[in-house]
Amino acid sequence: MATRSNAEDIFKCVNNDLEKVRERMAQIADSERDFPELSGMLCYILSGGKFIRPALVIMSSKFSSSSDEPIISMAIATELLHMATLVHDDAIDKADKRHGHPTVNSQWGLEKAILLGDYLFSVAGTLTASTGSLRVVRLFTNTLKAISRGELKQSFAAFQLDKSYSDYLERIVQKTSSLFVMATESGSVLSQTPEEMVQALHDYGYNMGIAYQIVDDILDFTGTEEELGKPTGSDLSQGTITLPAMMLLERYPKNNPIKLAFQGYEIADNLRKATEMIISSGIIDECYHIADSYAQKASKNLDKLPDNIYKSALLELTRFVVQRKE
Amino acid sequence: MATRSNAEDIFKCVNNDLEKVRERMAQIADSERDFPELSGMLCYILSGGKFIRPALVIMSSKFSSSSDEPIISMAIATELLHMATLVHDDAIDKADKRHGHPTVNSQWGLEKAILLGDYLFSVAGTLTASTGSLRVVRLFTNTLKAISRGELKQSFAAFQLDKSYSDYLERIVQKTSSLFVMATESGSVLSQTPEEMVQALHDYGYNMGIAYQIVDDILDFTGTEEELGKPTGSDLSQGTITLPAMMLLERYPKNNPIKLAFQGYEIADNLRKATEMIISSGIIDECYHIADSYAQKASKNLDKLPDNIYKSALLELTRFVVQRKE
Repeated sequence: MATRSNAEDIFKCVNNDLEKVRERMAQIADSERDFPELSGMLCYILSGGKFIRPALVIMSSKFSSSSDEPIISMAIATELLHMATLVHDDAIDKADKRHGHPTVNSQWGLEKAILLGDYLFSVAGTLTASTGSLRVVRLFTNTLKAISRGELKQSFAAFQLDKSYSDYLERIVQKTSSLFVMATESGSVLSQTPEEMVQALHDYGYNMGIAYQIVDDILDFTGTEEELGKPTGSDLSQGTITLPAMMLLERYPKNNPIKLAFQGYEIADNLRKATEMIISSGIIDECYHIADSYAQKASKNLDKLPDNIYKSALLELTRFVVQRKE
Repeated sequence: MATRSNAEDIFKCVNNDLEKVRERMAQIADSERDFPELSGMLCYILSGGKFIRPALVIMSSKFSSSSDEPIISMAIATELLHMATLVHDDAIDKADKRHGHPTVNSQWGLEKAILLGDYLFSVAGTLTASTGSLRVVRLFTNTLKAISRGELKQSFAAFQLDKSYSDYLERIVQKTSSLFVMATESGSVLSQTPEEMVQALHDYGYNMGIAYQIVDDILDFTGTEEELGKPTGSDLSQGTITLPAMMLLERYPKNNPIKLAFQGYEIADNLRKATEMIISSGIIDECYHIADSYAQKASKNLDKLPDNIYKSALLELTRFVVQRKE
């Protein structure tokens, strides 16, 4: 296995473009300077982030003659849509921290968090429309639909133990893959990439999104609070059954600590026990194996693309998503 | 003054089109039948409503050769965007009832209300994109931006007594007029109406929106709980200073019951006293006078349109918005 890489190294090949993305995101906050409270909120959330999704838009645009401006706009739109959904997610979960920083809802309250999320949707939509591509606009609205639908599915499935692996897969495809697909597809469509390659990048985004989310769901059990920037075991305590929990339920159908916790018996103790069992049972390895199989599918999807530094970076990213710790 | 009319009578001239809107809205709920919980929520909120905004889209499309399908889609998109913002508003205000029916948040909880709002944004956006007009897509995203920005302004201004009439006007233009403008402008743009008439209908929507919101703010003080379908005096109790309250603050700068309530003194008593003073002081008449002046501006905007049954209906609507009781 290659030496462990980080996202920053992988994205070096698109650093100039990412710099433009950062500059223009700062301008978005600045454009609201006559409304200082909003400008302050925007400054707070628009700084930072790993920028995986904007980088995906940009890298996906490099297999054809790309026109700069719409690509940068779309890279920003993708990040803003992502942020809007995180702001609403945190508001819903009443989460205090994300990546170690206080969430918008903990800093400004629920009301402002809901409205800031709506505002970010609108700015993302405006940037998407500015690309002049109706196909990309449709991709954008369909992505928002998939994400909110996936989150609704998750919300209605909370504390329910009868969900299948295919329910789980459908949910993570909607809430996570859809945005990866929007990134890779919009980047390639806006640069007039031949349709066969657009499809390949679409599929890459789809499989990468699944791998990414499975690893996210693993890290929720195995990560430290410091690495995650939020408490370990958040998913289970909110009633969200992810892949590792699903496997534990399948292996130990009787007296399963998750079942007991959801029935209200010694909740904290049983949830801790569930996490310990998941870690000691080999389930984590199995989940990583599944995540890795999707990452490999993603790298296979790239076969149809010509070799260049961007393809190498996209390949490297398939390894990174499985190895990452945060 | 003409006999009091109701919205249904005024919209008779576009009844066939509104019927299509209703049918297609029912289909939206039905399209999610493989996700019964979501389908149930959609059924719940997509039935009912005065349909003022869809009617505005349709009536505004009748001054030129209209192409049916995009107009109906846009009429639905406008209503869904309106509903999405109401669902989020009610979630923010923790409102129990709207138009006499339990709100989404009181029926399904805050989490589902936030996500349903997001879902409705996406369906509205998809319908807007289906019109094939990038201009209308931009209008849509700018409208969402204006609404969320106006709501954020209102939220940050809560319990603040130093706001001016122009702050109030800016806020209601953003949160209410913007959607009326989206309705009239999109209807006329999609039917290839000459630009001068598009502008006239834009201005009509702008002024109608202001009149509509001022009357809304009046009714919050003068309406009965039965008429409003929610408690009287909701605005003040949430710290929102609307036109009538602003006038009371200006007339009685000393020992004003609103000031006292916001400082925490005998809140319920002082808020009731404020409402009584607003009603007995002639402020309500003055507010109606202002609302009426905007309604008259709106009817004046129609001078540039040819006479027909749709123009008559739009004129009638300017009287209705000022006379309505709910």
